[in-house]
Amino acid sequence: MPHIELGNDLPGITGLMAYRPETAGPLSALAEVLLRGPSSLTRGERELIAAYVSSLNECRFCTASHAAFAAAQLPEGRELVDQVRADPGGAPVSAKLRALLRIAALVQADARTVTADDVAAARREGATDVEIHDTVLIAAAFCMYNRYVDGLATVAPEDPAAYEFMAQLIVDEGYLRLAR
Amino acid sequence: MPHIELGNDLPGITGLMAYRPETAGPLSALAEVLLRGPSSLTRGERELIAAYVSSLNECRFCTASHAAFAAAQLPEGRELVDQVRADPGGAPVSAKLRALLRIAALVQADARTVTADDVAAARREGATDVEIHDTVLIAAAFCMYNRYVDGLATVAPEDPAAYEFMAQLIVDEGYLRLAR
Repeated sequence: MPHIELGNDLPGITGLMAYRPETAGPLSALAEVLLRGPSSLTRGERELIAAYVSSLNECRFCTASHAAFAAAQLPEGRELVDQVRADPGGAPVSAKLRALLRIAALVQADARTVTADDVAAARREGATDVEIHDTVLIAAAFCMYNRYVDGLATVAPEDPAAYEFMAQLIVDEGYLRLAR
Repeated sequence: MPHIELGNDLPGITGLMAYRPETAGPLSALAEVLLRGPSSLTRGERELIAAYVSSLNECRFCTASHAAFAAAQLPEGRELVDQVRADPGGAPVSAKLRALLRIAALVQADARTVTADDVAAARREGATDVEIHDTVLIAAAFCMYNRYVDGLATVAPEDPAAYEFMAQLIVDEGYLRLAR
């Protein structure tokens, strides 16, 4: 049960966004630009970073949501998402994405530990400065979304179908839909 | 030196916002609504929560910035900001703000550890549900801003005058100014 009376029974961040539209606007706009806006990283790759960081933060709702959103938008589907969560260093992603996932994990744990060597390693695999920037900000943003969802004890559905339903909504209409 | 070439020498998040206006929009809009929008918490109280969380994350730029912004907007000024950072449980703030600062610290460390008792304690001191919501989101948001600023190794000025200058800008014009 959520710590505050939301006046709705929507799960996770969707209940919080309906409760407080003033903050829902910028929160959904940030997710839209980071995860779906113009980028040389695919939407599936960016959702994979979001799912991975959410799993490191052990946020059940965000992990299940963004794992579903990544699976729906990656050619390799759910299997790759599960491989990355289980073994990010060994999963069959591009060397560039592996280096970006490593930076995301450092940002999640303690962003001050990202070194010039970590960034140089990503660059050697072809990462651009904007891709490095966006990876750091996606990882940082999910340290916010995860804490927001868990700090207020929002509800995380057990049924995988709930996340499949949300995935279809996000893929078709995007995050701004959540703030409406 | 920042990890990526920003094309400007602005400090902290201001350099990142100038580098990537697409994300600067929602990031500044979120800060504006959380820290300056209509609320039963004063702007000074909200900046105090932001400064406190930033100091727990040991983010030099954000701590110095929001400590200056809080000092500029609290009747008690800088002394109270320093007292809260040194001893949040003993600092001479209202019992309500003390309970909210406690929730903010839990969110910073591990948001899943916020209990119904912590929330009930804040309510007993007069905190409303919206105040509890906003405290959780301010704490969560600074876990993002702090990681963003430090994960890309942005520059934090040594000179306190730099933060006083920014404080005047924020007090007079607000956060949306940063995205312009």
